Amino acid sequence: MDENTIAYRSMEEIKYFQEQLLKLQLRYLDDHSPFYKQLFSTHRIDVKSIETIEDLKRLPLTSKNDLQLYNDDFFCVPQHKIVDYCTTSGTLGSPVTFGLTDADLERLAKNEMQSFQIAGVRKGDVVQLMTTIDRRFMAGLAYFLGLRKLGVGIIRVGSGIPQMQWDSILKYNPHYLVSVPSFVLKLIEFAEQHDIDYKKSSVKGVICIGEALRDKELNNTVLTQRILEKWDIKLYSTYASTEMGAAFTECEYFQGGHAQPELIITEILDDEDKPVADGESGELVVTTLGVQGLPLLRFKTGDIVRKYTEPCACGRNTYRIGAVEGRKQHMVKYKGTTLYPPAMHDLLAGFPQILLHQIEISNNEIGTDEIIIRVSSSDISEEFLNEVKDHFRAKLRVAPKIEFVAFEELQRSVFNPLSRKPITFVDNREA
Amino acid sequence: MDENTIAYRSMEEIKYFQEQLLKLQLRYLDDHSPFYKQLFSTHRIDVKSIETIEDLKRLPLTSKNDLQLYNDDFFCVPQHKIVDYCTTSGTLGSPVTFGLTDADLERLAKNEMQSFQIAGVRKGDVVQLMTTIDRRFMAGLAYFLGLRKLGVGIIRVGSGIPQMQWDSILKYNPHYLVSVPSFVLKLIEFAEQHDIDYKKSSVKGVICIGEALRDKELNNTVLTQRILEKWDIKLYSTYASTEMGAAFTECEYFQGGHAQPELIITEILDDEDKPVADGESGELVVTTLGVQGLPLLRFKTGDIVRKYTEPCACGRNTYRIGAVEGRKQHMVKYKGTTLYPPAMHDLLAGFPQILLHQIEISNNEIGTDEIIIRVSSSDISEEFLNEVKDHFRAKLRVAPKIEFVAFEELQRSVFNPLSRKPITFVDNREA
Repeated sequence: MDENTIAYRSMEEIKYFQEQLLKLQLRYLDDHSPFYKQLFSTHRIDVKSIETIEDLKRLPLTSKNDLQLYNDDFFCVPQHKIVDYCTTSGTLGSPVTFGLTDADLERLAKNEMQSFQIAGVRKGDVVQLMTTIDRRFMAGLAYFLGLRKLGVGIIRVGSGIPQMQWDSILKYNPHYLVSVPSFVLKLIEFAEQHDIDYKKSSVKGVICIGEALRDKELNNTVLTQRILEKWDIKLYSTYASTEMGAAFTECEYFQGGHAQPELIITEILDDEDKPVADGESGELVVTTLGVQGLPLLRFKTGDIVRKYTEPCACGRNTYRIGAVEGRKQHMVKYKGTTLYPPAMHDLLAGFPQILLHQIEISNNEIGTDEIIIRVSSSDISEEFLNEVKDHFRAKLRVAPKIEFVAFEELQRSVFNPLSRKPITFVDNREA
Repeated sequence: MDENTIAYRSMEEIKYFQEQLLKLQLRYLDDHSPFYKQLFSTHRIDVKSIETIEDLKRLPLTSKNDLQLYNDDFFCVPQHKIVDYCTTSGTLGSPVTFGLTDADLERLAKNEMQSFQIAGVRKGDVVQLMTTIDRRFMAGLAYFLGLRKLGVGIIRVGSGIPQMQWDSILKYNPHYLVSVPSFVLKLIEFAEQHDIDYKKSSVKGVICIGEALRDKELNNTVLTQRILEKWDIKLYSTYASTEMGAAFTECEYFQGGHAQPELIITEILDDEDKPVADGESGELVVTTLGVQGLPLLRFKTGDIVRKYTEPCACGRNTYRIGAVEGRKQHMVKYKGTTLYPPAMHDLLAGFPQILLHQIEISNNEIGTDEIIIRVSSSDISEEFLNEVKDHFRAKLRVAPKIEFVAFEELQRSVFNPLSRKPITFVDNREA
């Protein structure tokens, strides 16, 4: 199958292999990237002097702000070479345009082919895509290209509409779904309401995107537990972004998402931009390999993750990246504890009584962070409120302020028509 | 550019070329299609005896009903060879599944590459796709594959949302759009309301799908006229369907959509399944060439079209297929005249006062067809009603019954949540 890929070589071979690609990419940036050419010149850097992954730290970091301010200067090819125009979703700040050449689309296909292989998808399987290929999103297209390259049957349903998803599942018998995990909960709910025998369906696994399946100890999150209690399937996490053009995907041993060495070099840095120890959390910084259109060098993703380097039972000698614990800009300092919204979202997901919630962060008078969680719940008793707070104390060591709010009111605020995504986190802190 | 394609050879060479492909496809059907194998056997047909396009008429026709009843028997490859699952929209009857192999996707890419070339799109252009690639639709994916093969920049926006479409147009400066023509009217309206200087935008042409741009004399429809009065761009019609896996696209001379000889053989038949003369209207019957997954032989599309064989100034020696004048099952016999809904829809589109309409056909007591057009209009005067009726008499030779209806009432009926498309035609006749 894929035993010939670089992932099965020794860690030394992988490192040497990556360094050859790194040198090529640096030369390419020096020749074609207006932004990096300028950066190298300003910092008097001779790219030929960068030969190892350790040397990388001599190069400046690239921020999301650079990408937003100088978007055009990051393009390394003339416009007529760009085949596909993608836009980042702009979760933070204004959206950025990514242009992919034909070779980049091939690289993207290879990335997703290998990503699906890591999750165990094989030629001849059938996969149902529950994510859009439209709206200038990179992911949906990447899945399609990768699955086609792998020789898999593809059902392009797009996102949402449980009825349509089930019609397709029952008609085409897919072995795998690609979905946001919280939508899998919706599928189960719909099946229960409409007497669909989902436990006997063809689905044996879901490749999950957009939300964390594991916590920092690689244990199942509450969301994952809720799905698995209902449905005996495998949930594989895949973590990727437009900027990286590479996915980190879990194998059958669920020890974090395996890196693909030919596509990306990663670093995990602390608040002072120093490397953290393996297993410690920090900001993911990426250097893309083999990208033609818009390659990035030491790009700070803002995502807080951990790197796991213990050998994996699957036989791949690649390190893994854990679930995104939070975004750097979303970090909350609360009563001496560092919190990120995903852990709070997941904790709230454990209460079926909670229909909708929104976390709001602000500065208080004494200059520290204040958390208010607005909750719409079917149970608004004092007992339930205390139960939720106790859970917070047990899991996250602190209990924020929680307010019950009417469903309609909260719905208006969460599902703002001007936003592409539900607004479950509001940051009112001054920068 | 594309001067080497078969379209530029002599008509005799094209015919000979098609006949070689036809023979290959017939052998393939005889070897791999459970449905056609059975059909050949029942009718004691030796496929080797079919050598010319004229011989085709000795073969039985295939109906939409066959495809619905025996969908699985039409598949010529085992399931693991199917890469993409498409579903017909089921405008009439229940949806049918089409499975495409990897080679079929390549054929589809070639089809759309050539289709865009016929409309004048060239390598290095940028094209904005205003149609979905999700929902198991074939068309959106076909456009993407074809444009990529052509080396064109692609902006995958998906359907609807004028604001998002304009954001993309102003940011990425596409030269062409792919859109339903009535949505182009919506884009113009939005631009006027939001002070977007659309007349100075980058757009120079629209590849129009789903609605007719020309009438049977190849003159502009009212819809086309309304767009062109506002916006000085080129509107190219492209006509295709999932069943055909081939597009008929207008060149710069707008003399009907050019056929692509390597992809399809067409016949146009009358009510007794006899060929009509060139230029006369009849039902389009297609035989697909080079299809692996689900090829069709003499398939009755139900679409009423005309074939134009006069030489085209573009230099291609291929015949053209005109706009779809109607669907066979939608034919209305009214006061001695044959009518199809598209002509009525287009006539009504000429009145900006008419906000929404729905055509309803039923049998009357004496067994002939009755037409009632329910109209929601900003002008409900007797004078306006007479003006509309006079237009019907002038253009279609008859005036049906017209009723003014409140907007909300008609809206509920036209935009039925259970339907994928607006319901502007209701057929209450007994079969």
